[in-house]
Amino acid sequence: MNQQRNIVIIGCGAGGGTAAQFARKTDRKASITVFEQGAYPQYSKCGLPYVISGRIPNSTDLIEFSEEWFNKAAITLMLHTTVEEIDGVNKVVKANQGNKSIEQPYSSLIIATGAHPSVPPIRHLPTEKHEVEGVFCLRTLDDANRIIDALTKKTYATIVGAGLIGMEMADCLHSRGMKVTIVEALPQIVSTVLDKDMSQPIQDALKDKIDLFTNHFATSIDQQKGKITHLTISNGETGEEQKIKTDLLIIATGTTPETVLAERLGCTLGKTGGIKINEKAETSIPDVYGVGDCTEYHDFVTKRSILTGLGSIVVRQGITAGINAAGGSYTLPPGVLLTSTSEFFGMEIASVGPTSQHLDDAQSIGGKFTGSSLPEYVPGGKPITMKILIDKKDGCVLGAQAVGSNAALRINTMACAILNRMTVESLRKLETAYAPPIAPTLDVTTLVCDVVAMKYNRMKRSL
Amino acid sequence: MNQQRNIVIIGCGAGGGTAAQFARKTDRKASITVFEQGAYPQYSKCGLPYVISGRIPNSTDLIEFSEEWFNKAAITLMLHTTVEEIDGVNKVVKANQGNKSIEQPYSSLIIATGAHPSVPPIRHLPTEKHEVEGVFCLRTLDDANRIIDALTKKTYATIVGAGLIGMEMADCLHSRGMKVTIVEALPQIVSTVLDKDMSQPIQDALKDKIDLFTNHFATSIDQQKGKITHLTISNGETGEEQKIKTDLLIIATGTTPETVLAERLGCTLGKTGGIKINEKAETSIPDVYGVGDCTEYHDFVTKRSILTGLGSIVVRQGITAGINAAGGSYTLPPGVLLTSTSEFFGMEIASVGPTSQHLDDAQSIGGKFTGSSLPEYVPGGKPITMKILIDKKDGCVLGAQAVGSNAALRINTMACAILNRMTVESLRKLETAYAPPIAPTLDVTTLVCDVVAMKYNRMKRSL
Repeated sequence: MNQQRNIVIIGCGAGGGTAAQFARKTDRKASITVFEQGAYPQYSKCGLPYVISGRIPNSTDLIEFSEEWFNKAAITLMLHTTVEEIDGVNKVVKANQGNKSIEQPYSSLIIATGAHPSVPPIRHLPTEKHEVEGVFCLRTLDDANRIIDALTKKTYATIVGAGLIGMEMADCLHSRGMKVTIVEALPQIVSTVLDKDMSQPIQDALKDKIDLFTNHFATSIDQQKGKITHLTISNGETGEEQKIKTDLLIIATGTTPETVLAERLGCTLGKTGGIKINEKAETSIPDVYGVGDCTEYHDFVTKRSILTGLGSIVVRQGITAGINAAGGSYTLPPGVLLTSTSEFFGMEIASVGPTSQHLDDAQSIGGKFTGSSLPEYVPGGKPITMKILIDKKDGCVLGAQAVGSNAALRINTMACAILNRMTVESLRKLETAYAPPIAPTLDVTTLVCDVVAMKYNRMKRSL
Repeated sequence: MNQQRNIVIIGCGAGGGTAAQFARKTDRKASITVFEQGAYPQYSKCGLPYVISGRIPNSTDLIEFSEEWFNKAAITLMLHTTVEEIDGVNKVVKANQGNKSIEQPYSSLIIATGAHPSVPPIRHLPTEKHEVEGVFCLRTLDDANRIIDALTKKTYATIVGAGLIGMEMADCLHSRGMKVTIVEALPQIVSTVLDKDMSQPIQDALKDKIDLFTNHFATSIDQQKGKITHLTISNGETGEEQKIKTDLLIIATGTTPETVLAERLGCTLGKTGGIKINEKAETSIPDVYGVGDCTEYHDFVTKRSILTGLGSIVVRQGITAGINAAGGSYTLPPGVLLTSTSEFFGMEIASVGPTSQHLDDAQSIGGKFTGSSLPEYVPGGKPITMKILIDKKDGCVLGAQAVGSNAALRINTMACAILNRMTVESLRKLETAYAPPIAPTLDVTTLVCDVVAMKYNRMKRSL
């Protein structure tokens, strides 16, 4: 088998781009072709809000690997190119670049087609968002550029969806001087990463800055001369409606995996609608790999199937698929921990493992603790609240949430503990670093364990 | 056994004070007596440099548990009280408070006598440091107050010892406008926590700020009218001597455990000179516990006996001894990880596990990586260098060192990995939190593992 490997990658997002990079590292002689329907090579989607806020000066700063980089790596990158069909029998990808038809044979295929925004049923919303002036999703660099162009003329921003991206956008638009309203169908913000008792203090702190409607649905838009003027929202409990003055509407209600090509090829999809992949990032079809937002993997703790929409996971899948597609051998971690973080309105939040909504009460107990980033006697300490959830059966830590000072780095330690199935009794004794200007004698990471260990031990004694 | 428990604690530092607190939590009715020869109840020794720098406004801010607190907790705290003898046969502690003799019986005894400064052989150095004006150790709150009083009249500070406390003091005195010289017998600074290749960039960065003499010994002092004027230092290689103008001399060359009482009682001492304790913080004598800087425990990774001079460990020993002395049941972690951190001249350093000096080359391989605290495309990222050492035999992570942004919190994650005997292959896949304003897609915590995993895999293949 000295034949040259032919690796084809569909999609040049973080997953596809990373796969190309690691395929090249693994096989220096393989032919590698990447088809991308957009105008840009791999860029950071997570950075888009910060281009809009101005923290990142230019939208093109987000491009992590330039066309030049792909050239130097001898990877054929074809932008503005749409894959129409995958011929699995003859192992050929058929694509169009403008009027040009391309047929590219493959020995290994990596499907990295990503996801598209899920848009809730809002009356009078056009199919193509920007057909009505002032209506946007935020998924691509072009979306960000369009929003930036629109900003100068707008005053009233409404965001549908109070997930991480919705909250990040609220902060960005507020920092640009807009009056911001958020509409969220659920009773709380950022429900995928924080329990209600952890998110409530954030919601309270935001009262002066933005209008937040939880338990409300966006039902319809009003427009005048092709421009949005109002969003009508409906109270999920009472059905009561009200109109919100809106000249900029951002829809941030999640995404749906883009699986049309994979389905037609015959790849098995999971219950979430994503392409099922195994620990080698293989789909159900030999020599066909899946990476990124179009795929489904499983949660490490609960084993439930999940869509892996986090950039950090997508990159790890890209590494795995790239290496394996090029004849190497690498595996994904034994499940997704869902370690995630965000910052908005000056507050850092982070989370790992399932929140309470994915654990039933019979299975877990939890508790929280608010400490300081510094010893009490050192001026300048910042508050940090952590919550952990543990298994009632064996005391193993299942999930952790943090709001405050360096929440993300503290959650990384929790991720390590969960991955190692540490018990709360063992984790409470973790020897953390201490020095007066840096960290307290006992970090909140272990103090929250003390709280929950005591609950757990009381529960065990009472059985 | 409904008899009231009689707990006596010798020493009210972090170890003794914490033990008292947890003894009270465990047994609400016990009689608890704490003897302390100094003038203050439990205060933070680690905070002393920051009182001198002025970051902590008053030296009494360091007192973590006040006399009032001890009163409220119904713990008898006897300050200015020196224990003269422990009568192990009759279980009685004999102490003096001024001219008053005290005999206090005990059912459980906790020895928390701490340590005293180790002073190297410097000619003309008085036994009591402050007999010559301008010569100090930094061990107690009174030491700090004396240094602060002296500062206004001094210009030339020389510090003997470039360990963590020496470096912290150098920063503090430099920030107070003094001209600072450091003299260190070893070839590098902070050798207990960083390898030479990790400390060298720090030494280079300090060149403009302080005079640093590594490989040099302090040999003698000159004085005039009872005030120090110069320190003579000698080059460890060439023997060449030079005089350093000095009107403030700080000796920061470590400590020696204070074990006289324990030895006379018959407690077994370890090779390090500390009182041997087991995982329950018990000494070799029944009902006698040892905590803090006077004790010896073992290193988790190398199993070697070590003096446990870190505040974070001392507090954990205090918790364990306090609970067990009061009839509860608690154990220390399965060994000391030596997780530690410090900050000086704006640089944060941290470390966990053995450095290279405690591992032989046949046993371990290591590598380092410099990354950024933020993704490349976000302005404002700060550098962070990490090094890890792994076991050649099985790839388990043995130690980690960090210099730069949030070094301590990143080292906490490494501490968790080491405690769980994670392999570098498993740790490189740890799913860390990512968001553009917070952390990069792949944190340096895992990127340094990639570097070392590749070395390790190459080594395995070549065997």
